[in-house]
Order: sequence, then structure tokens, then C-alpha cells
Amino acid sequence: MSPHSHLSEIYRTSFGMLTDLYQLTMAAGYYDQKLHHKKAIFHLFYRKPPFGGDFAVAAGLPLAVDIVKGLKFSADDVQYLGRQKGANGEPLFKEPFLNYLQRLKFTGDLYGIPEGEIVLPHEPLLRIEANLIEAQLLETALLTVMNFSTLIATKAARIKAAAGDDTVMEFGLRRAQGIDGGLTASRAAYIGGCDASSNVWAGRYYDIPIKGTQAHSWVMAFPTEEEAFESYAAAMPHNCIFLVDTYNTLDGVAKAIVAGKKLRKRGHEMLGIRLDSGDLAELSISAREMLDAQGFPEAKIVASDNLDEYAIAELKAKGARIDIWGVGTRLVTAYGQPALGGVYKLAAIQDEDGYWQPKMKLSDTAIKVSNPGKLGVRRYYAADDDFPMGSIIYNQHHGEPTRRFVTESGMSVSVPPFDLWEDELLRPVFEAGACVFAPSNLHSTRDRALKNWRNWSRIAEFGNFPCGLDMRLWEQKQDLLDEIGFDAL
Amino acid sequence: MSPHSHLSEIYRTSFGMLTDLYQLTMAAGYYDQKLHHKKAIFHLFYRKPPFGGDFAVAAGLPLAVDIVKGLKFSADDVQYLGRQKGANGEPLFKEPFLNYLQRLKFTGDLYGIPEGEIVLPHEPLLRIEANLIEAQLLETALLTVMNFSTLIATKAARIKAAAGDDTVMEFGLRRAQGIDGGLTASRAAYIGGCDASSNVWAGRYYDIPIKGTQAHSWVMAFPTEEEAFESYAAAMPHNCIFLVDTYNTLDGVAKAIVAGKKLRKRGHEMLGIRLDSGDLAELSISAREMLDAQGFPEAKIVASDNLDEYAIAELKAKGARIDIWGVGTRLVTAYGQPALGGVYKLAAIQDEDGYWQPKMKLSDTAIKVSNPGKLGVRRYYAADDDFPMGSIIYNQHHGEPTRRFVTESGMSVSVPPFDLWEDELLRPVFEAGACVFAPSNLHSTRDRALKNWRNWSRIAEFGNFPCGLDMRLWEQKQDLLDEIGFDAL
Repeated sequence: MSPHSHLSEIYRTSFGMLTDLYQLTMAAGYYDQKLHHKKAIFHLFYRKPPFGGDFAVAAGLPLAVDIVKGLKFSADDVQYLGRQKGANGEPLFKEPFLNYLQRLKFTGDLYGIPEGEIVLPHEPLLRIEANLIEAQLLETALLTVMNFSTLIATKAARIKAAAGDDTVMEFGLRRAQGIDGGLTASRAAYIGGCDASSNVWAGRYYDIPIKGTQAHSWVMAFPTEEEAFESYAAAMPHNCIFLVDTYNTLDGVAKAIVAGKKLRKRGHEMLGIRLDSGDLAELSISAREMLDAQGFPEAKIVASDNLDEYAIAELKAKGARIDIWGVGTRLVTAYGQPALGGVYKLAAIQDEDGYWQPKMKLSDTAIKVSNPGKLGVRRYYAADDDFPMGSIIYNQHHGEPTRRFVTESGMSVSVPPFDLWEDELLRPVFEAGACVFAPSNLHSTRDRALKNWRNWSRIAEFGNFPCGLDMRLWEQKQDLLDEIGFDAL
Repeated sequence: MSPHSHLSEIYRTSFGMLTDLYQLTMAAGYYDQKLHHKKAIFHLFYRKPPFGGDFAVAAGLPLAVDIVKGLKFSADDVQYLGRQKGANGEPLFKEPFLNYLQRLKFTGDLYGIPEGEIVLPHEPLLRIEANLIEAQLLETALLTVMNFSTLIATKAARIKAAAGDDTVMEFGLRRAQGIDGGLTASRAAYIGGCDASSNVWAGRYYDIPIKGTQAHSWVMAFPTEEEAFESYAAAMPHNCIFLVDTYNTLDGVAKAIVAGKKLRKRGHEMLGIRLDSGDLAELSISAREMLDAQGFPEAKIVASDNLDEYAIAELKAKGARIDIWGVGTRLVTAYGQPALGGVYKLAAIQDEDGYWQPKMKLSDTAIKVSNPGKLGVRRYYAADDDFPMGSIIYNQHHGEPTRRFVTESGMSVSVPPFDLWEDELLRPVFEAGACVFAPSNLHSTRDRALKNWRNWSRIAEFGNFPCGLDMRLWEQKQDLLDEIGFDAL
């Protein structure tokens, strides 16, 4: 078992084939045109923050590491590819390329933003500097794992923020999009701030605390609700959260209290009750009164039923007395926006003489014009309290950032002249094909994500983010656009 | 490689731990209360058709087979569970239960609706008759695989229906929710009616046709668009679909035509062009004119850019000249509704004397009250053309269906007295723990799904579905509700 990524642990195969066909046909084209040793720089980034927010929580880097390590093609893989035909029935791939594929492994550099850091639009979550084929073949799978983990960590952070100091339990496995969709979601949700998961597999792999309550089927398996609660209390005296809404919710609460009193005589405490339907605000207020009046002020009220950050905020506004929020479907599928939409764009290519030619993907919309060069992300923090004061995307081919930058709205700004310390957000993960990644502990990643989310949310309250393109990168971009007579910006 | 399910092939572990913690604590409770040999019947079904439609395409059964076969706990799994603590620090699970778990395997019966069949609300996709613990432990993972596959097959069917006779290519892997999310989505999308996938792994596992075009990075890797197209044509003369929107789309079309003419001189035909941004209706009309005028009436126009059934219908209404629709994010994540919301409900339990006690999950909303008993689904077809004429949910504990049924709106209806043939939709998959599943060929499953979708869509046009609860089941349900004084219905 690996505490960092489940991918290489649970999948029997390597990941070379986890790609779109066009990556392979383009790779064959580069090979044929003898361009496959040409070095290129690609960045993986998102353009629009998910859920109408301002930023995202980076997650998925250890999974990306497994993808890169797994960039291999077996003899079987290559045979399958050899059988693919083009339009005229001729083999799609030629023998020399297939032989090359079978020897392929990643030999380039990869830099990434550590999990739990806040990542802003256009800031590269990953930067790949490798030969064209390797970089191209990795695109699809890197997007798959980074897009999804970052999306769910961000959703979880929003939900945890809405819940405030309350506990948030993730229990979405049954509604997840596939098995490792569930496993990845549980992991990313924990990074984003969830306190526990119901997913036993995720618990075992990632040492995430696992928690659970009771299902309607338990209550229905007994002739009466009383018997159901008492049988559970007999079997599991130290794990009693009674599900009270199988028949009538407040009757259920009364019966849970009876069972709780009997349990107490045996020296155990009822942990709480769970509401799973109905008006959760009203029911939780009544249940709280009943529990308090009957001597169970410590018993927790767990609630679930299509919850997300909006439902939690609304219930809190209505005075709901809920201590523990069980969040499933809407968290693990990121219901309102089930894909991050991250992209992977070519930003520079080396010419015959070894010079880097900057590249941009143009578009009619300014937001879709990518940034050229070898991008770094420089963060500035207040020296005393680690509070973020600025974030600049710059081109490392120009050297260090200038500390002058242009914001999205076109304003030119300087990093404030306070006593700041700075940090390069993109960290080495692979160097010349060797993995130099030191994964951090998942629990401290979660702590860091929670702190980052709070800090950046404070900044968001002020409206204007201290972030943008380094002045030299901005000028380079303008020059390149002028050169080709493009004036979308 | 298995052509039917990738799960046991790609996952190194068994699936016992792929469950919610409460399934295990309830299982421990049943074991403690000596109820674990009690037989129970559970059904897996959905209540509300996805995407505002009328029905869904069943998919996921071979994946469910792998889940059931994989219901096992390793020594490591059991040790992990043995370390879990309850509220007071006492072990959550006792030794005898843990020993029982380590010997556990599925010994019950499982029936399922074959993939590619239309499944209506409340019709069981799966029926499990097994001892309580086995049935309970399977709930989460069976929901995970059935919910997602059925959701995506249904989305694909809708998209294919909107595309009419045009080709639909699925290329969503990069936006999928996890790796097997992508693999499962490609498989289910093919069942639902997509013609091909870009996902090479899915292609290899499931013998799904794989197709691809070209990415912006290829075009950007060359000094000019002309050189990019000509280099591609040199390397891949039999696979030329040129991506024309990297700079200016109609300029791109003109350059593709130049490259196509040169290609033709070498004895190859340009297959087509791809549009990936802008006004796809307008651009495709102009591109079609240009291609036709320059002698390329056979060249196809591929379009992509956040497409789904709504966007396709809108583009067709605007007269778009698109031949091949590339559909990604919105298909593989079922963007508008990323979870089916299927449930798994207890419907009967055997008492000490071997009699089946019917069970219902009550709810304030009629749609949420489950059906009791051992449910079958009987389909009636017109004898001459296989056209579906009725679908009845009945309780097999009552014997054969009566051919009189009550619709959702409460109307009592009889199966028409025509010359019909009937078919039991739920087929044996496991019997007394032995797998008797004969998976069907994925290609014929897809053909059947396409035909089924067309037939049922014709019925949907008439409004009232000839489906409901068998009269005896309906009466039983009323009696049970009367008994407990419940009057939600």
C-alpha cells in the first residue's frame, strides 16, 4: 500500500495506453518527421475558477507521479496498436515507431504545485519540459487525474467553509463516477477539508478517518424501530448513531432516546442520531430540544440529504441544530460543475540551435490566449504571518520575476515594498526522468489546505487579487500578438 | 484481457473493502444478533429518469459481476478493520466477526437486466436474494458501477438520437472523473450508441473502434499552419483530419484544402477537417462550401466544443453542415446531472419459519415508497415486430403477473389482448453463489440499445407509458400501507 497514490498500487497495467488516439498519431507524426527529440514545454492549468469562485485547491500531484512513471507500452499494447488501420486499410502505425514506443519512458522534467496550495487561474498546476512525444502522450492522463482531484478538493473546501467548525463527513462512494472516481474523490475531499469518509477502501489506502451511521435497511430488518435500535445498541454499544427517519422522524428521535437511556445503564453513551429526509432545519431544532430535555446534550445530530455548501449555508441561516454534515453525491461528483476544464498547452519549443521559441494558443477570447515560455509562479507572503500578498506568473526564460505585474483587468501593479518573503510555487517532481518527488503527509496537506483557503478567502473579500503576469511576460505576450497582427487582447 | 469488464482485470485487489463503513458495522450487528443467515431480498433501481427523460439504458451488469465475485476480505483488510476503534477506544469489530469476514464470499442469487435494455423508473436493475450480510456489503459498490454506467449509456443514447445518422465520437477521457471513470464512460457511451472513442485503453479492452484527429499543439509545433498540415500529411497520409482553428478558422480550411490537394497527388485522400471553436453552424456551412468548390465533397467536417444533445439539436436547426460530432466533457461526466441517484432497498426478509415478510421503505413522497416482495419485470412485445407493448413490475411471491396493472397516475389498465409475446427482463446472473452470467457481445448490445431507444422513444411520443405495478402487487402495497396507517399514496 502506498499512502500517496492508489494508481500504481491498484492498477495492474501501465498507463501508456491511457491516452487519446490522436496523441499517438501525432507522436507517430513527430517520429516520422524526426521531431521526436525536440524539446517542448507544456503547462497544465485551468482558466476559469470552478463553482463561480475565485480559485481552486491544487490536488492530484501524487497521482500524476504514478501516471508519469507508468508511461510505458507493453508488447501487447504495441501489437494492438499495430493492428489499427487508417482510411485505406493500411496500418496506422509503422514498425519503427512501434518499436520506439515499446522502449519509451519519461526522460524529461516535471514541476508541480504541491497539493493543498491555492492555485489561481492560468497558474500552471504542472509544467512539463520533455521531448515532444513524451509530453504529448502524457497530456490526456495528466489532465484526467489533475482536473478531477483539484475539482473535488475545491468543492470540499467550499463545503467545509460553509460548515464552519462543524464536522463534515464525505459519503459519496455509491454515487461516484466509477470505483477510483470514488477513491480519488474521498482522497481529494479529505485534502480539501472533510473530516472523515465512509469509504472503507479510501480509509485503508490513505489513512483517512472512516465514519458511519446506520441505513434504513437495518431499521427495516427488525419488526419495530425500537427493536432495531436496541439490537444495534446490543451489538455496537460504542458506535450508536441511530437513523431516526425510517418511519416518522420525531417518533424515531423519541425511540432513540429510549434506546440511549438503556445504553447508558450499560455504561455506554449514545453518540447521536441521524436525519436523512424532511425539513432538516425544523427537525434538527425539535430533535435537539428533545435530546437536551432528556439528558442527552452531548448527543450529536448528523444530517444528510443532497447537501452541499449552499444547502448547508441555508440550513444554518434557518437556525438548524446540526453538528455533523454528511455530504455525498453533490461533493464527489461536483454536481453543479462536474469537470474543471483544465487544459494542457504548448508554451515553448526548442529550435535546431537550442533556442526556445515561445508559443501561444490564440483565441478570440482573451482568457483563452495562453501564456508563452517556461512559466514559474512566484508567491509573496507577509513575513510575520505567512499571509499571501501576491502571486505572479513569470517566464523563467527571462530570469527572476520583476515584482511588477499586470492584473487581469490590465492594471500595472507592484509587489508592495513591505517585508515579504517569496516562494517558488512549482516544485521539482521529475528531473531528467528521475522522480525527485517527496510527497507530503496527507494530514498536514489537509491542514495546509484549510489554512490556505481561509487566508485566500480573506483576500477574496477585498475583491482585487494581487496577482497577474510579470511585466516582462506581459510585454512579451503583447509583442508576440503584435507580430502576428492579432488584437484580441 | 476481458472483453466484458475491466474491473477484475485492472484492479489488483478484491472489492470487499469498496463499501461504506456502516455496511460493515451493520454486518457486525447482524452477526452479533445471529441474523446473518437470514435471507433478504434487495432491489437496485432508480426513481426518476435522468436528464428529464422518460427512461434509461441499462448498463454496468458485467461490472457488477466482477464486484460480486470480488466480495472478499484479505488478511490485511481484516487487520485494518480490527484496528478501527469505537467512541470509547474499544475495537469497533470483534474477533469472531472478523474471522467470519475473512471467510466470506457471495452465496446468494443475483438477477439483472441485460445491458442495452430500456429500464423504467422503479424497475429493478438488479435483484439480490442473499443472506443479510452479503446483500448489505454489496450495496455500495453495486450502486457505484450500475449508477454510473446506466447514466452514461443513457446520456450517449440521447446524444446519438440528436445526431441522427451522423457519427458520434466520444472523447472525454481528459475530463472524466478518474481513470476508470473514463474507461467506464467510454464503454457505456459505446453501448448507448456512440460510434467510436478516442480512449485507446477502452479501445483495447473493449474492442471499441478508436478514432482521433489532431490537436492544436501539433499545429503550434511548426512555424506555420501550412507546414503543420503538410508534415502531418507526409507522416500520416491515410489519417488526415486537419484541425483548422488554431489561428483563423477559414484560413485554416483554405490551407487544409491546399494540403489535401497535394495529398491527392500522392494517391491519398484528405479525410476531413475539424472545427473546435467559434460559431460552428456558420463555420461549418462556409467550410462545406469551400471544400465542395475545391473538389472535396467527400471530406467530412468534424466538430467539437462543449457539445451535448441540446447543442447538436440547436446546430442542426441552424443548418450546420457537420458530419461527425466529437463529444467529451458533457457526455462522460453527464454534465447536467452527474449522478443517476439509483438506490438499493430491502424488499423482503425471511422469518424464522421461512416465510417472506415484505418490506417497504416509507416516505412522505409517493415516488419514494419502495415496492415490496421479490420483484420481476415482465415485458410484452408485439409478436410481429418486437415493439414493446407493456412493462409490468410484479411480485414473484404471488406467481405470474396478472396482466392487469396500475400506472403511476393510478389508472388501472390491462395488457392489450393482441397477439403478444412476453419476456422476463431480469435474468439469472448468480445462482447460489455460482456465476451463471453469459455476457453478450458489446457490439450487439449497442445495436440492441439503439433499436430499443428508437422504439421506446416512439412510445414516449404518445405520452402514456404502458407500464406500472401488477394489480396484486399494487393491492399488497395498499394493504401494507393501510396496516400501518400510512396514507402518503
